[in-house]
Amino acid sequence: MEYAKGRIGRVFTVRIDYGDDLILELIKLAELEHIESAVFVLLGALKEAKFVVGPKENVTPPEPVWFGFDDAHEILGIGNIFLMDGKPKIHLHAGAGRGDNVKLGCLRGESEVFMVVEAFVFELEGFSARRIADEEQGFAPVVFEQVSDLK
Amino acid sequence: MEYAKGRIGRVFTVRIDYGDDLILELIKLAELEHIESAVFVLLGALKEAKFVVGPKENVTPPEPVWFGFDDAHEILGIGNIFLMDGKPKIHLHAGAGRGDNVKLGCLRGESEVFMVVEAFVFELEGFSARRIADEEQGFAPVVFEQVSDLK
Amino acid sequence: MEYAKGRIGRVFTVRIDYGDDLILELIKLAELEHIESAVFVLLGALKEAKFVVGPKENVTPPEPVWFGFDDAHEILGIGNIFLMDGKPKIHLHAGAGRGDNVKLGCLRGESEVFMVVEAFVFELEGFSARRIADEEQGFAPVVFEQVSDLK
Repeated sequence: MEYAKGRIGRVFTVRIDYGDDLILELIKLAELEHIESAVFVLLGALKEAKFVVGPKENVTPPEPVWFGFDDAHEILGIGNIFLMDGKPKIHLHAGAGRGDNVKLGCLRGESEVFMVVEAFVFELEGFSARRIADEEQGFAPVVFEQVSDLK
Repeated sequence: MEYAKGRIGRVFTVRIDYGDDLILELIKLAELEHIESAVFVLLGALKEAKFVVGPKENVTPPEPVWFGFDDAHEILGIGNIFLMDGKPKIHLHAGAGRGDNVKLGCLRGESEVFMVVEAFVFELEGFSARRIADEEQGFAPVVFEQVSDLK
Repeated sequence: MEYAKGRIGRVFTVRIDYGDDLILELIKLAELEHIESAVFVLLGALKEAKFVVGPKENVTPPEPVWFGFDDAHEILGIGNIFLMDGKPKIHLHAGAGRGDNVKLGCLRGESEVFMVVEAFVFELEGFSARRIADEEQGFAPVVFEQVSDLK
């Protein structure tokens, strides 16, 4: 475990509309508002999405198992924003339900909002963090670069 | 995408007890404390609940598919509170699990707490928002009325 | 319903690494940083975990139904930290997905992180709370001891 101590800065209440691409809109928000570190929660619906739903084998680097859907699902999600190579990178886990069918995984790439997604983005201040690719592990862990001296 | 910039105000830690109706208690809290905009997360158990688990067809206005249960499920949820016609309106997505069985959708109407639900309500300040019904779309999107000049 | 009014204090951004035990690391954080009340959200993956997925019967005290897995699942979770008998106690509900398979329940006891879990811990200030065991109900509800006079 490693951690950084900070506080909440600005909070963005975001309405992402029908037909929008969820992750692209979150990146756009981060760029417009110069958000470097944030955690967010969201709820809404998606008509189309792709998820990684676990590794094929329990080894790193993992070979991802993909799952997608192309009819409307209700969703809830928890995610974060950190810079990677100077650009905002979204990490988002979501559950998606339609009728009896539920999926849960790491939402990546293209998606399409159905009706609306409501997201609440909490900017994190008082420390510096970024994602640095680790090819051996097969992902980009968050590395804390400095911690301000909050009491 | 539209968004408002704000900050967190008061935070309410709420214990909702056995037999209580989850959404009614959240509305009661909002009324007692004059909460106009908030995001919340919750965990606990429900003995009874009804969810919308997607639209029948991928069209708006959607014809909702309903799912309900009447035995105790573990839950987690993400939701928000905004005023609609001057009254607090709850929007809550939740996942519910019991044994092998998981459902995920938009929790609406009556429900009954089993044991306890613990909710954390983050009031949002620095902007004004409300839900305005849109009959064509079949729901009430959040509309941001003004944004204070946070830097 | 009972509730306390407070505000957010320190926020901890936590990277829990491969092989770590999720709940033990959260307890370690609470002890190191003297966190008495907090709510957290998390996302990541677990190779191994055990959940309570509902009571056998809809009665209290409940006889828990257990579910476990021992291959990597993607997860998202919502939880809290309160003191019980002077020590930090974690309450965590999580959903876990792998391929077609999703479970949702109360994550307890030993678990093992796969790749990484990213947790965001929001300390709660301005009130005092602790868990007090209630043998009749079969759990330890959060009891609010005092509420500071926030407006």
